[in-house]
Amino acid sequence: MNSVTEADVAKLIEIAGEENVSTRTADLDAHSIDESWFPPHPADVIVWPSSTEQVAAIVGYANQRKLPVVAWSGGSSLEGNPVPVVGGILLAMYRMKAILDIREQDLQVVVQPGIIYDDLNTALGKKGLFFPPAPGSADVATIGGMVANNSSGMRAVKYGVTRHYVLKLKVVLADGSVITVGSNAKKSASGYDLVSLFVGSEGTLGIVTEVTLRLMGLPEQTAAVVASFEAMEDATGVVYDAISGGLDPSAIEILDETTIAVTNQRQGLALREEPTLFVEFHGNEAAIEEQLEFLRELCEDHGCLAFDQATNTEARNKLWVARKEAHDSIKESHPGKTMISGDVCVPMSCFGEMVHFVHQVSERTGLIIYVFGHAGDGNLHTEAIVDRQVEGEYELGLAATDEIVNHALEVGGTASGEHGVGLGKRQFMLTEHGDSLAVMRIIKQTLDPNGILNPGKIFPDSLGA
Amino acid sequence: MNSVTEADVAKLIEIAGEENVSTRTADLDAHSIDESWFPPHPADVIVWPSSTEQVAAIVGYANQRKLPVVAWSGGSSLEGNPVPVVGGILLAMYRMKAILDIREQDLQVVVQPGIIYDDLNTALGKKGLFFPPAPGSADVATIGGMVANNSSGMRAVKYGVTRHYVLKLKVVLADGSVITVGSNAKKSASGYDLVSLFVGSEGTLGIVTEVTLRLMGLPEQTAAVVASFEAMEDATGVVYDAISGGLDPSAIEILDETTIAVTNQRQGLALREEPTLFVEFHGNEAAIEEQLEFLRELCEDHGCLAFDQATNTEARNKLWVARKEAHDSIKESHPGKTMISGDVCVPMSCFGEMVHFVHQVSERTGLIIYVFGHAGDGNLHTEAIVDRQVEGEYELGLAATDEIVNHALEVGGTASGEHGVGLGKRQFMLTEHGDSLAVMRIIKQTLDPNGILNPGKIFPDSLGA
Repeated sequence: MNSVTEADVAKLIEIAGEENVSTRTADLDAHSIDESWFPPHPADVIVWPSSTEQVAAIVGYANQRKLPVVAWSGGSSLEGNPVPVVGGILLAMYRMKAILDIREQDLQVVVQPGIIYDDLNTALGKKGLFFPPAPGSADVATIGGMVANNSSGMRAVKYGVTRHYVLKLKVVLADGSVITVGSNAKKSASGYDLVSLFVGSEGTLGIVTEVTLRLMGLPEQTAAVVASFEAMEDATGVVYDAISGGLDPSAIEILDETTIAVTNQRQGLALREEPTLFVEFHGNEAAIEEQLEFLRELCEDHGCLAFDQATNTEARNKLWVARKEAHDSIKESHPGKTMISGDVCVPMSCFGEMVHFVHQVSERTGLIIYVFGHAGDGNLHTEAIVDRQVEGEYELGLAATDEIVNHALEVGGTASGEHGVGLGKRQFMLTEHGDSLAVMRIIKQTLDPNGILNPGKIFPDSLGA
Repeated sequence: MNSVTEADVAKLIEIAGEENVSTRTADLDAHSIDESWFPPHPADVIVWPSSTEQVAAIVGYANQRKLPVVAWSGGSSLEGNPVPVVGGILLAMYRMKAILDIREQDLQVVVQPGIIYDDLNTALGKKGLFFPPAPGSADVATIGGMVANNSSGMRAVKYGVTRHYVLKLKVVLADGSVITVGSNAKKSASGYDLVSLFVGSEGTLGIVTEVTLRLMGLPEQTAAVVASFEAMEDATGVVYDAISGGLDPSAIEILDETTIAVTNQRQGLALREEPTLFVEFHGNEAAIEEQLEFLRELCEDHGCLAFDQATNTEARNKLWVARKEAHDSIKESHPGKTMISGDVCVPMSCFGEMVHFVHQVSERTGLIIYVFGHAGDGNLHTEAIVDRQVEGEYELGLAATDEIVNHALEVGGTASGEHGVGLGKRQFMLTEHGDSLAVMRIIKQTLDPNGILNPGKIFPDSLGA
C-alpha cells in the first residue's frame, strides 16, 4: 500500500473540487474515530464526494495508485469499522444525503448513503411509511453505515434487520467500475444474492452510493410496557415464553439492575432497580389489547414486581426514557473511562444463561459490566467500564469481553449481532467461521485484489494488507 | 470437462457402495428431467450418497477428474435447474432426509437436504412449529432444492422466502472441502453473508448437505377468503390497496378467469369464471376478525361480485381447492402439450399492468396463457400452452414468454421470483443484472475454478463450462 502524495491530493482536487478535499489536521482528526474505544487514526486526506461518478473516479484512481480508501459517514459505529487505521483517502459520505425517490406506490425509497436514519423516517412518516430497523444511534447513524454493517436494533425482533430491506444497491467496486445489484422486485431467485453480500461487508468489497429500501406502513397503534422482576431469570423467562408462545412484540428489551440504576441517576428517574423488561407492540387496537393481556399474564406467572403500560405517545415516551437513554447514561456516568462494548447474539434458549455468565465475569474481575440488549433476538450488549490510568485494567476489560464472546460462540452464537466486525471482533472470526473464513477471504481478494477498500477490517491478519 | 469412465464408476462404488451407484438407463432416465419443458438429458452415473463425507469424497474426486456434479432431489423445479445437461455425476440427495435435531427451545431445526417440505412440516406441527415458505410443490419439493433455488410460495407475502429462514448450512465446496456457514444466532453482523450467497446458487457454488432453519410458531387461527371481480383491474386494485393499507395476509393470490375456468372443469367446481382473489390470514381471533372486515370493505369498494370466507379447516380447504389445484388442473387439461412457465416478479404498482400485458400477448399470439400468482409480492406466474407438433408454436410460446420477462425487467422487476434461473432464464441474466453479472461470474470461477458444479446453469454462456 502506498502513501498519499501531493500529486494524489492534486488529483483528488481535480475530481472533487478544491472545497471538497482537505488535509487539515482538524478535519483529519474529526474523522479519525468512531464511537468505539479504539484509538484515533487519521486518514491522509479527506474527500467529500457529491456523486457516484466522483466516488468511482476516486476509487479507480486509488486502485491504480494502491492507496487505501475508507468510507465514513455517521461515525457512530462501535467497533472501529470506519477508522482509517492505515491512513489513505477517507470518503466522507454524509453530504450525499438526498432522498432521490419516494416510490410510495411500491413501498420503496431510493436514497443516497449519507442520509441519517431519523431524517429518512421523518420524511417517510409524512407518507405513512417507515424503515423499521431502529439502531440505537438513530439520530446520527446513516443509511450507508447501516447497510455497511447490516445494522439493526430493537425492532429487529418483529421486522428483521437492514439486509431484509435492501432491494437494490449502486456500488463502486475496487477498480472504480459501478454496478447495480438487485432489482425493484420484492423477492427474487435470479442469480447470486449480491445485495446480501455487499450488505454487511463494511466497505471492504465496494462503496455503496445509492440504496433502494423496501418500506413498511406505519403501525396503526403503538403500546409500551415496562415490567420489573426480582431476578434476571424471571425477566429472561418471560422473554423466552413470550417469543416461543407466539407473542409478536415490535421490541422486547432487557436492562439489568446496574443499567437501571445508572439510568435513574442520570435521567432523574425512579424505576425499581431490578432486572427490567421494556416491551413495545405495533398493530391495530384489538391485536395490541390481546397481546398486552398475554404479556401481563406471562409477567405475573414469573412474579413481576411492577407492570406499567401506556398507549399514548407522551406516556409511552416517559415509560421508555430509561431504555432510550441507557447507553448515553452509562457513558456520562463514567467520564474519562473507556467503555468496551460487546454485541454477542446467542440462540434464544441461551440468553438467560448468557446474562448470568456476564454477571459472573463482572464479579470475578471486579469490573462494572452493564448488560442490556435485544432479548427477543438473543442479542446481548455489554459495556465493560475500565480506567486506562489504572495499570492492567484496560487489558482486564478486553479479556473479560473476549471471554463473553468466546462463551457466546461456544453455545452456537455470533461475535456480532449488529455492530459488525470492524477492528473489535476480528480476532474471533476464525473461531466463529472456521474454514468458511477462507471463502470470505477469497471473495475479498477477488473483488479487491489490491486490498485498498477499508484495509485492516474484518479479517484477523489483514491490518497491513 | 471429462467424461465418466469405468474407472470413475469403480471409484464412486468404492466411496458410496455398489448398491448406491447406478449406470442403468432406467435410473439415468428417471433423473434426467425436472418439471420444466426442457428435454431430458441423462447423467452418466447416479450416486445416492448417505453422508456429508461421501458427498465430499465424490465432489473432491470429480474435481480432480474434471467431471460435472449435479445435485438432484425432488425433481420438482420448473426451470431445468437440476437437469444434468452435460452429463457427469448426478447426486441423488433424497435419501439424505433425516431430521437431525428439532431445537424446539430455539425455534430451529437441523435437517438433511433430502427431506420433503410437507414431511418436515408434519413433524414440526407436532411441536406447534412450522417452516413457512410453502412452495406450490410442497408435497415433493425438498429442503435442499428450496435452499438451492431460494424457493418461496404463497406465504412469502407475510413470512418471507427460504433465504430468510436459513441460519446455517453445511456445504461441500468444489474441491471437496466441507465448510459450515452461518450460526445458530437469529441475526448476525459477523463477516460476509455466505449463507445468503449459497442460498439460491442452484448447486453451482457448493453442495448443501445440512440445513439449519429458523421456525415460526403455528398460527392460532387461519381464515380463508375467495372473492371474484368483474375485471382484473378490480382484483389487482384490491391487492394494491390491501398491501399499501397495511393488511397482513398470509397469502393473497390471484387467478385469472381462464385459470378459474380450467380448474372448475378439472375439479368439478362452480366458481364464477371471473378474476378471483384467494386470501388467507394467520393470527389470533381478534386480529383476523378485523382484517376480514377491512378486506371485505376493500373488495366492496372495488365492486366484488362474490365474497366468501371460512375459518374452519374443512370449509377453508373447500374454498381454496381452486387455488391449490390450479397448476395441476392446467397440466391435466392439456395432455401432450408443453407448458412454458413464467415466474416474473415486479414492483407492486406494476402488477395490474403486468397481468394486462400478458393478456395482450395471449390475444396477439393466439396462445392460451394462464395467469396466476402471488399478487401481494408482485410475483406473476404464466403458463403458455403450446403444441410441439404444430410448426412454429413452440417458438411462438418461447417468444411470448420472453416478451413477458423483458417487460417485467423494463419495469424494474426480476426474471425469476422463486423458481430460479436454471436453464430457462439464463438468457435474461445480462439484461437483468448488467455488469453485476460479471461479479457473479468471478465468484463462480473463484469457488469452482474447474466449473464442475451444475455446469450450464445460471450463466448465459456456460453450457460447455
